Amino acid sequence: MLRIPNASLVTRCTLAIFVSVIATLSTTLIHAAPRQATAGTPPATNVILFIGDGMDEHQITMARNYLYDSEGMFSMEKMPVRSSVRVKTLREDNPDHFRYVADSANTASTLATGFFTSKGRISTSAHGDVDQKTILEDAQAQRYRTGLVTTSSLTDATPAAFATHAAHRYCQSASAMHFANSALDKTQQCARDLKKNGGPGSIAEQLAAADIDVLLGGGTDLFNQRLEVDESNHSTILDKALSHGYQFLSTKEESQTAHSKTRLLGLFARTHLPVEWQGEHHRRAELIKTDNQGKAIFPRPFSCEKNPDHRDTPELAEMTSRAIQALSQNNDNGFFLMVEGASIDKQAHERNPCGQIGEIQAFDKAVSVGRQFAAQQTNTLIIVTADHGHAGQVVPLPESYQASSNALKIESYPTGYYAVLKTLSGELMAVNYATNSSPHSQWETHTGINVPVFMEGPGLEHIPVLTDQRAINQLMRRHLKLH
Amino acid sequence: MLRIPNASLVTRCTLAIFVSVIATLSTTLIHAAPRQATAGTPPATNVILFIGDGMDEHQITMARNYLYDSEGMFSMEKMPVRSSVRVKTLREDNPDHFRYVADSANTASTLATGFFTSKGRISTSAHGDVDQKTILEDAQAQRYRTGLVTTSSLTDATPAAFATHAAHRYCQSASAMHFANSALDKTQQCARDLKKNGGPGSIAEQLAAADIDVLLGGGTDLFNQRLEVDESNHSTILDKALSHGYQFLSTKEESQTAHSKTRLLGLFARTHLPVEWQGEHHRRAELIKTDNQGKAIFPRPFSCEKNPDHRDTPELAEMTSRAIQALSQNNDNGFFLMVEGASIDKQAHERNPCGQIGEIQAFDKAVSVGRQFAAQQTNTLIIVTADHGHAGQVVPLPESYQASSNALKIESYPTGYYAVLKTLSGELMAVNYATNSSPHSQWETHTGINVPVFMEGPGLEHIPVLTDQRAINQLMRRHLKLH
Repeated sequence: MLRIPNASLVTRCTLAIFVSVIATLSTTLIHAAPRQATAGTPPATNVILFIGDGMDEHQITMARNYLYDSEGMFSMEKMPVRSSVRVKTLREDNPDHFRYVADSANTASTLATGFFTSKGRISTSAHGDVDQKTILEDAQAQRYRTGLVTTSSLTDATPAAFATHAAHRYCQSASAMHFANSALDKTQQCARDLKKNGGPGSIAEQLAAADIDVLLGGGTDLFNQRLEVDESNHSTILDKALSHGYQFLSTKEESQTAHSKTRLLGLFARTHLPVEWQGEHHRRAELIKTDNQGKAIFPRPFSCEKNPDHRDTPELAEMTSRAIQALSQNNDNGFFLMVEGASIDKQAHERNPCGQIGEIQAFDKAVSVGRQFAAQQTNTLIIVTADHGHAGQVVPLPESYQASSNALKIESYPTGYYAVLKTLSGELMAVNYATNSSPHSQWETHTGINVPVFMEGPGLEHIPVLTDQRAINQLMRRHLKLH
Repeated sequence: MLRIPNASLVTRCTLAIFVSVIATLSTTLIHAAPRQATAGTPPATNVILFIGDGMDEHQITMARNYLYDSEGMFSMEKMPVRSSVRVKTLREDNPDHFRYVADSANTASTLATGFFTSKGRISTSAHGDVDQKTILEDAQAQRYRTGLVTTSSLTDATPAAFATHAAHRYCQSASAMHFANSALDKTQQCARDLKKNGGPGSIAEQLAAADIDVLLGGGTDLFNQRLEVDESNHSTILDKALSHGYQFLSTKEESQTAHSKTRLLGLFARTHLPVEWQGEHHRRAELIKTDNQGKAIFPRPFSCEKNPDHRDTPELAEMTSRAIQALSQNNDNGFFLMVEGASIDKQAHERNPCGQIGEIQAFDKAVSVGRQFAAQQTNTLIIVTADHGHAGQVVPLPESYQASSNALKIESYPTGYYAVLKTLSGELMAVNYATNSSPHSQWETHTGINVPVFMEGPGLEHIPVLTDQRAINQLMRRHLKLH
C-alpha cells in the first residue's frame, strides 16, 4: 500500500488516509483513558520519554526531506522547546576520562539514572560496577505506574537501562551471560551478575521480576529461555513474568483488544520487531564502482516501500496508545513511560536509508500520540530525544560530483556507501554512510554529534540551549518529585 | 604561544590569559562607543548577524570537545534561544524544485533577502536573475549604518550576498567575469552583469560603490584591479572605494588605532585571511593505509597549534569590536552588521580539523564581543547561525575499530580521511571527513543537515524550534522595522 515510486496525488492521499487512520485509532484508545482532575484532587503527574535511537539532526533532516520536503515537519518539531544534548561517555578503564562516541547502553543509563558511565554498561557505574537507581525504579517506589515500549527486544540496551542493572548489555539471558564473557573486558564480565554468583540474574530475568506495569516490544526468544536457577520445574522467564500478574499479548490483534488486567506484557517478535519500510528491491546504500576508465558509476535512484514483514506487527504508535491507556486508566498518581524507536539506529548501522526513514516516521507518530494525551492531561511532561548520533549524511547528488570531476579533471565521487532516493514529492536526495570501511552489513558506527531534545509540558521556562543527558534525567525527576 | 600538545596547567593558563586579553581589548574598544538612550530618545536599534560558514552541530561538537571537553561551552551556547534551521536550495533549471545540499551563495542570499534561490547566486532569483533587495540595502535606505566583517575576501559569497547582486559568486572582478563564463551554466553567466552590458559590474565594484559604513576582511587582490569601465585614468576599485570617503586599514596595527572618519575599509590579506590554527607539523586528516596483511595503519594523534602566518592578522573579534565601535558611535538610529567566520567552511573542505577548530573558536570570540555590546545596548538583536552543514564528523577511536576487526575477523577502519586529535585536556578525539573520494585537498563537500541558530535580544518570545533562513531574514527585518 505504501510503495511510493512517484509523487502521485493518489499516493499522497493514500499516505494521508493511512496516517489519519492511525491518528484516529490512537485518539480512540486514548480518549477512553484520561481522567480529568476533580475539584481538590491534584492532577496525575506523568512523564513520557521518547528515545529515537541514533536519531541525530542529520537523520531527522534526511527523513523530513524524504517525507515532507521543504515545508512540512514532524510532530516533535512542533513542540515548544528545543535544546541540544551533549553525549558523555566515561572510559571503563579510567572513569575520570572520556570517550566522544557513545553507545546506547551508556547513554540510556545516563538518561535513566542521571549518572555518566562507560560503553556497554546497563545502569551500573563505570569500572566500579555499582548499581545506579533509575528514574523508573524511583517512580515505582513513589507508586507511579511505569512502562517500557520499544521496537527492539525488551532486553536490548535502551529499555534494559531503565529497569535492570548489568555490567554489560550482552548479559541478556543466562546463556548469553556464559557466551558473552570472552568478548568482554575483565571489568564488564557478565559472570558476577549471575544469580548463582549472588547477582541479580540476566537482564531478561530482572525485567520479568521488575513489576513494571507495561512492557511492550520484542524478545520472545529471550523470555522463552529457562530461568537460571530452576532445578525443579523447567519454568521459563515468561512463566515467571506471568506469575507477576501480566496479561500476555503476542499479536497485533491482541495488542488492540481491551485488556483484562492492569499489567501488560507484549512480545511481538522473537528479537527486534520488523521495520516498517524497506528500499525498492531491498536496496540500501551501495559502494560506488568505477568503470575501466576510472569513471564513477553512480547507483540509480530508488524509492522506499512498506516492508511486508511488518504487516502483522503493531506500530510503535499503537503500542504507545495501548501503554498510555493502561498506565493512565484509574490512576490518580501518574506514570513514567519510556518509548523507544530502536531501529532508527539499527537501520543506520545497516546503511539502509529507507529503513531509517520509516522508523523515524513511526517514532514521530508515537510522539504525536503522546502529545495528544498531554494536551488533555496537562501535568504531563513530554521529552523527545536521541541517545547518540549516527552515520547517515545528506550529501550532494551525482550531478554535483560529476561537475567537480569535470572541473578538476580528477574523478570525484562519494566516500562510503551511497544512495539516491526519490522522495515522496519526487525530488532526488542523496545520502551516504561513511564511518566504516568494513563491507560487513551491520557495521556503520555511531558518531559523536550532539543530539536534539524537544520538550513540552510544565516547568520548561528556563531550559538552557545546551544541556546533557544527566540534566534531562534531573528534569524528569523534578517533574515527578523524585529526589 | 598557543601550541598545546598536552593539557598542562600552564597551557590552560596561557589560553585563559590570551582569551582574557582579547576580552579586555574588546571591552575597551566597545566601552568607548555605546550611547545610553537619554530620556525621550528611543534607543538605537541594532542587528548583528553572525554567520559561521559551514558551522553545523557536528562541527560545533568537534570544536567544543577539543577546547572545553565535556563541561565547558561556547559563548553562543549561552544565548537564551536556539532553533534549528532548514536549508533550502532551489534548482536553477527549475526553481519549483529543490536540492538538499546548499552552497554559501544561495544560503547567504536567503539570509540577506528572505527569498530562496539556487546555488551560486548572489541575491538574484533562481533562473530569472532578478535582483532581490537585501536587508543591508533596506537598512541603508532607513538610515541605519551598515557593516560587513569577514575572514574571507570581502568579495566572497557570504559578504557579497548582503550588498551586491550577481548571477554567480564567481563574478567577483571584471577579469573573473570573463574567465568564469566557461565554467558556468548558461543562465548564470557573469556577462550580463558587466557594466558594458548594462549590468551593475563585478561584485568588487558593486561593493566599492555600496556606501557601506564598515567593510573589514580580505581581498586586496580584487580591490587592486582596474575598474571595468575606466579608459581615462587607470584607477582601481580601491581608488573608487576611497573616493566614497573610507579610511583605509591594511594592518593589524591600523585595525586597532583610532579612526578619523566614519567609514572604514580594511583589507588585511590578498584574498582570504590566514587561519588561526593548524595541526602539528601541518597535519590534517589522512587516508588510512593498510599493511601487507591488510591491517589498518592508524595515524598517530596530534595536537593543534597557532598558525604563525596568522600573527599579523587582526582577529575576527578585533575586527568585530572595531566595526561595532564605528557603527554605534554617535548613532541614534542603529545599525545592521554581518560578521562571518568564513574559514570554518574552507578548512572543512580541506580536511583540516585544527584549522576548523581554531576558526570556530575565533568566531565564538567575535560572538562574545557582540553579546557584550548587546548587554549594554539592549535593543540589539544578536543572531548566530550557519549557512549550511559540512563534512567533519566525530567518529570512534582506532581502538574501537580494532575491537570490531578482532570480533568480526573483517578488517574495519574509518572511511574517508581520518585524524586523531589530542584535545586541550589531553583526551583523544577522532574525526573523519568522508563525503568525497577525490584526493584533491579542497574537495570535501557540504552536507544537507539542518543548521543551528542561537538568538539573544528583544522580541524572541515565540521562536519555533524549527525555522528556516527566510524566517531569520524576516525576524531581523521586523526588529529594524523594515518592510
